[in-house]
Amino acid sequence: MTTRQPAQPTQQTRSSRPSGGGGSRNLPLRFVPLGGLGEIGKNMMVIEYGQDIVIVDGGLMFPDDQMLGVDLVIPDITYLADKMDRIRGVFITHGHEDHIGALPYLLPQLGFPTVYATRLTIGLITVKLRERRILDRANLVELDPDTDTPIQAGRMNVSALRVNHSIPDAVAVVVRTPVGTVVHTGDYKFDFTPVDGLRADLGGLARLGEEGVFVLCGDSTRVDNPGYTPSEQVISQTFEEIFHHSGGRILIATFASLISRVQQAVDCGVKYGRQVALVGRSMVNNVQMAIELGYLAVPVGTLVRAEDINTIPADRLVILCTGSQGEPTSALTKIANGDHWLVQIQPGDTVVLSSTPIVGNERAVSRNIDSLMRQGARVLYQGLAQVHVSGHASREELKLMLALTRPQYVIPVHGEYRMLAHHADLAVSMGIARENVVVAQDGDIIEATPDTGIAIVDHAPCGNVYVDGTGVGDVGQVVLRDRRMLSSDGVIVVVMTVDAETGEPLAGPDLISRGFVYERESEQLMEAARARVAQAFNKHSQQPGHSADWGYLKNKIRDTLSEFIYEQNKRRPMILPLIVEV
Amino acid sequence: MTTRQPAQPTQQTRSSRPSGGGGSRNLPLRFVPLGGLGEIGKNMMVIEYGQDIVIVDGGLMFPDDQMLGVDLVIPDITYLADKMDRIRGVFITHGHEDHIGALPYLLPQLGFPTVYATRLTIGLITVKLRERRILDRANLVELDPDTDTPIQAGRMNVSALRVNHSIPDAVAVVVRTPVGTVVHTGDYKFDFTPVDGLRADLGGLARLGEEGVFVLCGDSTRVDNPGYTPSEQVISQTFEEIFHHSGGRILIATFASLISRVQQAVDCGVKYGRQVALVGRSMVNNVQMAIELGYLAVPVGTLVRAEDINTIPADRLVILCTGSQGEPTSALTKIANGDHWLVQIQPGDTVVLSSTPIVGNERAVSRNIDSLMRQGARVLYQGLAQVHVSGHASREELKLMLALTRPQYVIPVHGEYRMLAHHADLAVSMGIARENVVVAQDGDIIEATPDTGIAIVDHAPCGNVYVDGTGVGDVGQVVLRDRRMLSSDGVIVVVMTVDAETGEPLAGPDLISRGFVYERESEQLMEAARARVAQAFNKHSQQPGHSADWGYLKNKIRDTLSEFIYEQNKRRPMILPLIVEV
Repeated sequence: MTTRQPAQPTQQTRSSRPSGGGGSRNLPLRFVPLGGLGEIGKNMMVIEYGQDIVIVDGGLMFPDDQMLGVDLVIPDITYLADKMDRIRGVFITHGHEDHIGALPYLLPQLGFPTVYATRLTIGLITVKLRERRILDRANLVELDPDTDTPIQAGRMNVSALRVNHSIPDAVAVVVRTPVGTVVHTGDYKFDFTPVDGLRADLGGLARLGEEGVFVLCGDSTRVDNPGYTPSEQVISQTFEEIFHHSGGRILIATFASLISRVQQAVDCGVKYGRQVALVGRSMVNNVQMAIELGYLAVPVGTLVRAEDINTIPADRLVILCTGSQGEPTSALTKIANGDHWLVQIQPGDTVVLSSTPIVGNERAVSRNIDSLMRQGARVLYQGLAQVHVSGHASREELKLMLALTRPQYVIPVHGEYRMLAHHADLAVSMGIARENVVVAQDGDIIEATPDTGIAIVDHAPCGNVYVDGTGVGDVGQVVLRDRRMLSSDGVIVVVMTVDAETGEPLAGPDLISRGFVYERESEQLMEAARARVAQAFNKHSQQPGHSADWGYLKNKIRDTLSEFIYEQNKRRPMILPLIVEV
Repeated sequence: MTTRQPAQPTQQTRSSRPSGGGGSRNLPLRFVPLGGLGEIGKNMMVIEYGQDIVIVDGGLMFPDDQMLGVDLVIPDITYLADKMDRIRGVFITHGHEDHIGALPYLLPQLGFPTVYATRLTIGLITVKLRERRILDRANLVELDPDTDTPIQAGRMNVSALRVNHSIPDAVAVVVRTPVGTVVHTGDYKFDFTPVDGLRADLGGLARLGEEGVFVLCGDSTRVDNPGYTPSEQVISQTFEEIFHHSGGRILIATFASLISRVQQAVDCGVKYGRQVALVGRSMVNNVQMAIELGYLAVPVGTLVRAEDINTIPADRLVILCTGSQGEPTSALTKIANGDHWLVQIQPGDTVVLSSTPIVGNERAVSRNIDSLMRQGARVLYQGLAQVHVSGHASREELKLMLALTRPQYVIPVHGEYRMLAHHADLAVSMGIARENVVVAQDGDIIEATPDTGIAIVDHAPCGNVYVDGTGVGDVGQVVLRDRRMLSSDGVIVVVMTVDAETGEPLAGPDLISRGFVYERESEQLMEAARARVAQAFNKHSQQPGHSADWGYLKNKIRDTLSEFIYEQNKRRPMILPLIVEV
C-alpha cells in the first residue's frame, strides 16, 4: 500500500464559477461510461479533465442468454489504450461484482493504477487479485469516508461519502475538478435505520449541494419504483417471526456479500438459541473476512462447522447459504436437486430465499423453490413474506438525492436505457432543464463545461469483451453465432476422402451428427442424407476440371445437405463438409 | 361436425351418495394430469371412470432455457396408448396455446376422438388443424355454455359453464360421473364487468355446490396474489388516458388471442378518431376470425391495411401488433430492432406493452423497451401504467370458487408445484380436510371415491415430448445434452485418414472448429493441438496390433485433445474424432 497524498480541499461555490473565458478552467470535463450489456455506466466511468483521468469502478457483467458459453463480460477499455499514463487512480464505490469484478482483468491492461476503496471493498478486491495471482503487483489504498482527506488526482481531487447499499462500506465518489464538483453516487439508497448503524452522509451531500455540484452521476436502477425503499430493518422483523414459528431447521439463502443480512440472521440465531452453519464457498469466505475486518459481530460458539450440521438438533440450527439466484453450481441449487454432500432437505425445514430474482434468473429460482417444496420444505420467498429489500433508491430517494445535491447537470447512470430516461424525466420534473440532463449509452463521450452546457460529443469504441474459461476477448461475434447455430439444431460433419491427383472419391461420404437427431433412431434419414451427398459429389466429379475446386464442392455439399435436411424435418443444423486429399 | 347426443342431466345431491358399498358406483374416479415443464395439470387432464375416459384440454408448453432448439413441448400420452377406444371426448376449456396447441400432434395419436369446445375455441382449433392438414379427419363439436345440454360420454356426461379469462368463450368443464360431479375450472377469473358483458356463471357454480361437487380441479396460477384480479375494464380507462394525451402514433402490443384488449383498443381508436392497423400474422388472423365469428365489433372504415400505415397522419393511427413478450420473430421485436418492413419508430410514437412478461421472457421484453426508447418512442409498460390485468383468479377469487362449489375433494391444477401447494393450503384454511386435498405432479394417477378418500395410487410414464421443426419426439435427452455442450464451448472435429491395411496415417490429423475460438486469431493454439493429436496417434501406432482398434484410438484422441484444450483455456468443446480408412 502507498501512503496518501493529502490534498487541499477545493473551496468552490456556484457563484465563483467563471461565466465564460478564463484559460484552462474552460477545458471541458469529460465523462465516458464503459461497460455494456444493457446496464449503462454501471461497470466503469471514466472522468477526464485535461491530462488527468480518474476512473470510478471496474466491474463485470454476467452474460445474457445470447452469449452462449461465456463466463463473464468485462468492459472494453480501448478508449483508455493510449491514455494509460494519465490515469490518476481507480476509485471503487463498493464491493459488488459489477463494480469490482473486472479489476483482475483490467488492472494489468491499465498498467496497475492505484485503486482506492473503503476497507471492506479493499478486502474483497484483495481476494480477487490473490486468486488471479496479481496481488503483489497491485497498489491498493484504503479510503475512510469519515476522515475526508481528498486524494489528489492530478488537477482533480477525490473523496468518498458514505451511502447505504446492500453491502457495507458503500460510498459515493466526489471528484472536485477545476470546473466544478462531480458526485458519482455509486449504487445507493437512504436507509435511516441501517443494520450497521451507519447512515448515508446526508450532511455531506447537503454541504456539496450548498457549495455547488457541477455534475451528478446518479444510480437509476429503481426509478420505476414509487416511494421509498424500505429499511433493512424490516427484515429483522420478518426473521423474528420466522424463527419464532419454526420448529425445524432454518435455511437462509442470500447474497454472500449482503453482510447485513448475515448479521440479522446471526442475531436472530443467537436470540432463539440456534447455531449458525455456513454453506457455499463464497458465503464462508465473505463471512470470514467480514468477521476479521470487524463488519460482522458473531458471538463465540455461534458458528458451527458445516460438517457438523447433522449432529445438531433441527430446532437448534440455522444454515446460511448461497444460491438465492438459482445459480447452477451454488449450494442451494445443489440442495434443491438433492445433490449436496452435506445438506439434505428434510420435512420440517424452512427455507428462506432472502433476495429477489435478478432479471433472467426467475426460472432457475422457481425451479429451486419447487424442488425444495417437493421434498417437504416450507419455502418463504419475496411476495409471500418480506424477506428482502432492495439496495437501490426508489423514486422519492432519487428526488432526495437531487434535492440535496442540486446539480447543474445530471448524467443518469446504473440502469437499462429506459431507467436512465425515466431518471432524466424525474430530474426535469424537479426543475433541471432538459438540456442539462444527458441520457448516454456506454461508450458515449460526454463533455460538460459550466457555461456552454453538456452534450455527447463523440463515441468511443465500446463492445463487450467476453471471458470464457481463461480466454479474454478471443470469443467474438463469429464464435457466438456458431454456438447459437450449434445449440439450436446441432452439427453434421461430412467427410469425403479423395485422391489428390485424380479427385476420385476413395472413401465416404461419411456423416456424423451431434445434437441433431438421435442417430440410432434416425438411421434411414442419415442414410438418405448420405446418398444425397454422394449424388451431389458424383455429379460434380463428372464435370471436367473439377478436381482443384474443393471450396466449390464443399459449398455444394453444404447446400445440398442443408436443403435436404430442411425438407425432411425443418431443421437447420450446422453442416461441416471436410474433404481429405490422400 | 357431428350431432349432439343430449343426455339426461344427473340430479344428484350430496346426501344421495351411497355411504359405502353399492356395486359399480363404488368404482374410483381416476385423474391423470399430463403435461410437464413445471406447470402441473395445465395442458391435459385425463378423467377416467371404469371403461370411460374424458380428456380436458390438449395444450402445449414452450421450451425452457435448457431445451435448446426445441420449438414446442407436448404432453407424453403413453398412459393413453392402450386406452384409445375408451376416450369419449376431448373437452377444451379455452383457446390458448397451452390448452389447444398440442391437438394437431395428439389428435392423430389418439385416433381423432371428438373435440368439444365453445365457438371461438373451435375457430382457433380449426386454424391449427387446417395448417397441419388434418382438419378433414377431425371431429369438432361446438358447445354452447348457455344451453346446458350435457354431452354423454359413456357413463359420464359433460357440460360447460362460462368463466372469465383473457380470451372470450372460456369455460369450466363439468363432468358428472356415477360417483359425483367434477368441476374443472380451466383458467379463470371472476370479472364482474367484462368487456364482452358475459360474466362467469356464478349461479351455475353455486347450483353445482348445492347439488354437491365431488372433486374440484382448480386453477392455481395466481394463488400468491392477494385480493382480487382487477376487471379488464380498468384497461379502458388507461387507454382513454393514453389516447387523450398522445399526439403521435400509438402502437399497442398484446397477445393476439386477447380479443377483449383488441376490442378496447378499437373502441378507443374510434372514439379518438384513429384508424386501426393490424401488424403481425397471428394478430391479423385472430382479429379476422373474431370479427367473422362475432366476438369483435369493428365499425366499417376503422381498419386500415398495414401497407397504408405510412399514408395516415400520426395522430390518426393506432397500430395493434404482436410481440408483447419479446418473441424474437414477432412484429414488435422487429420494429424495436429497426427490422420491420413497414413500421419504423419515429419520435412522438407511444408504444404500449399491454401484457406482463411471462417468466423467462423478462430480458427479451426489456431489450425491446430499451430499443424502442432509444429510437425516441415513449414506452408504457405494466408498472408505469395499468396497461395489463391478469386473466387468472387471485387469492380471494380462489376462495370464492371454493365457497361456491364446496367440493368434497380438491386437486389444485394449473401452476408450478409451489402454487399448487399454496392453493392446497388455501383450501385447508377454508375447512377442507388436509387429506381431502391432493397436490399431484404430472403423471400421478389419483383415485377418488366418495367414501374412501382421495390419494395418489400410481404414476404413469410422463416425460416431455419435444417438437423440433417437424420432428416429434426424435429429440431426446442425448440430443439436448449434446446441444448444451455444443452451445457452451463449440466443437472440434479431428480427421485422420489411415491405410486400411497397415493402419499407417495417410493424411491428417486435420482439425476444424466451430464455436470454440476464432480460428484465424488462434492459429498457434490450433497448430499445437494438431501436434498433440499427431503425437498421441504416433505413440499408439507404434504399439503392436493397434490397427484394428479405432475405437480405442478415438477415445485416446478425444482425451488427449480435451485435456490439452482445458489446460490452455479452461474450455470443454465437444471433440469429434473421425478416422477414415482408405
